[in-house]
Amino acid sequence: MPRVKYFKTDENAPTPLTFEIKRKVRFDELDPLGIMWHGNYASFFEEARVALGGHYGIGYLDFANNKTSIPLKKFYVDFMAPLEFNKTYTIKAILHYNPAARLDFEYEIYDEENRLMTTACSVHLMLDMGHNTVLVAKPEFFENFCKKWREGSLNA
Amino acid sequence: MPRVKYFKTDENAPTPLTFEIKRKVRFDELDPLGIMWHGNYASFFEEARVALGGHYGIGYLDFANNKTSIPLKKFYVDFMAPLEFNKTYTIKAILHYNPAARLDFEYEIYDEENRLMTTACSVHLMLDMGHNTVLVAKPEFFENFCKKWREGSLNA
Amino acid sequence: MPRVKYFKTDENAPTPLTFEIKRKVRFDELDPLGIMWHGNYASFFEEARVALGGHYGIGYLDFANNKTSIPLKKFYVDFMAPLEFNKTYTIKAILHYNPAARLDFEYEIYDEENRLMTTACSVHLMLDMGHNTVLVAKPEFFENFCKKWREGSLNA
Amino acid sequence: MPRVKYFKTDENAPTPLTFEIKRKVRFDELDPLGIMWHGNYASFFEEARVALGGHYGIGYLDFANNKTSIPLKKFYVDFMAPLEFNKTYTIKAILHYNPAARLDFEYEIYDEENRLMTTACSVHLMLDMGHNTVLVAKPEFFENFCKKWREGSLNA
Repeated sequence: MPRVKYFKTDENAPTPLTFEIKRKVRFDELDPLGIMWHGNYASFFEEARVALGGHYGIGYLDFANNKTSIPLKKFYVDFMAPLEFNKTYTIKAILHYNPAARLDFEYEIYDEENRLMTTACSVHLMLDMGHNTVLVAKPEFFENFCKKWREGSLNA
Repeated sequence: MPRVKYFKTDENAPTPLTFEIKRKVRFDELDPLGIMWHGNYASFFEEARVALGGHYGIGYLDFANNKTSIPLKKFYVDFMAPLEFNKTYTIKAILHYNPAARLDFEYEIYDEENRLMTTACSVHLMLDMGHNTVLVAKPEFFENFCKKWREGSLNA
Repeated sequence: MPRVKYFKTDENAPTPLTFEIKRKVRFDELDPLGIMWHGNYASFFEEARVALGGHYGIGYLDFANNKTSIPLKKFYVDFMAPLEFNKTYTIKAILHYNPAARLDFEYEIYDEENRLMTTACSVHLMLDMGHNTVLVAKPEFFENFCKKWREGSLNA
Repeated sequence: MPRVKYFKTDENAPTPLTFEIKRKVRFDELDPLGIMWHGNYASFFEEARVALGGHYGIGYLDFANNKTSIPLKKFYVDFMAPLEFNKTYTIKAILHYNPAARLDFEYEIYDEENRLMTTACSVHLMLDMGHNTVLVAKPEFFENFCKKWREGSLNA
């Protein structure tokens, strides 16, 4: 089970959903010190988040098609070791269950020796794109998704 | 005095140093929802941090000339409201005093009506660029700077 | 009159429209060699183009409000000298008159000693956003704009 | 043999070197119109160029280890069709032989149906990093590489 760091664990919550991608640090992502510039981590985490969404069927377009956007409320990153040019890292996205209409994501970056380089979290609200208002209740398509999650019937 | 949110206040510490810049959101900084993509905030905060450093004489090049780099240990952002295309925002950088060899920065972004849009913090360690080791004690040029800070004799 | 490099000059065309902005190279725009990464020039030119559009009333939003987008067809850059950290450069955008439904932009970057660092051009088609088709004739709002341009009655 | 568009073909020159990578368009690479922002193509081409260099043994670090940098002199892009979110494209880098101390790269981007979306070229000079002067003759390690290229003894 993924290590929870940024969110409190609810023992009755369904198991977090996880997904991993691999990504190489490109030349244009380096800063003058030759390590990855810290602003580029947002793209690493987002790529893993988008891949998790695509895998489980709650991707960016699923939300958009349901006129819901998921703006960030919070984005926290802790750096243990720098990422280096041309090396490939594993980025793990972890979606924690939340009873409210929000997404609690956690992230971990590992190097090829499986050392933990970075941890992070992002919290996303849900916004009705038509009325530009924050949703208090989960939109129907997402509640259906959560129901399957609680029942353990999501395709993994 | 700046509102402290991410760091504990030490009553005996010298007054935090602050500096403000203004910056307009560019087209290439927008995401498909037409608001500033969250990964770009790092550049907004860094520009204010660099300007503060330049103003007080502890800029990126001052550290580099003293063979010290200041990698991030922590970068936390909280979003209250989105930043919009072509609007100009004020970014305030706040450097809190810390007795250890690290930099504690806090940031605030305000719109033209002076509404608080974003708060953030970054914590930077100090690294000996030659030996690639974390510095436990402040390097001499920075200790000299801190001495003036404590004495209240920095040029504002 | 601006030096024409990328486009043929038509002697009967109205004088090109020009606009200048200033911009400082930020830390996050540097590559590991400590000069501005070449991919970032697109943002420099775009900022000048957007400012020219805003000044003369044919900005990005004017096109969008008229359901027209202006995707790039061509983007050419020639580099004479690198841009350096924390230095401020002048970016000049030059819009050449074209009888067809397209925008011919040219760009020049100068340093503080007025040395020419970079030249570039971008060619933009006009696209009907509803039907996603390339426009053969200028849309009405833009033809009105061009009429004033030919008559010399644009607000400078 | 790759189609030459930006460079004149010398019939006696050795066959151009080519290398292909695949890359997916990420959310943060989109502009507000939902297509890839034109400034991001530089990163696509560079990733293919770096991969070609790595494959044939003349990568960025090979140049850096020989105290040579390869700044851009020219960067031209022609757009046929936009790149779309989450789709995967093939980027082909093509290195043309040049008797002078410069690198002539050409690029092609194809979608999954093998349609040509973009063509581009970049011309790189060679710079002595110590003296910051443009090299007139090829540095030794690169001349050795070119010799093998002419003899057809490069590892493909």
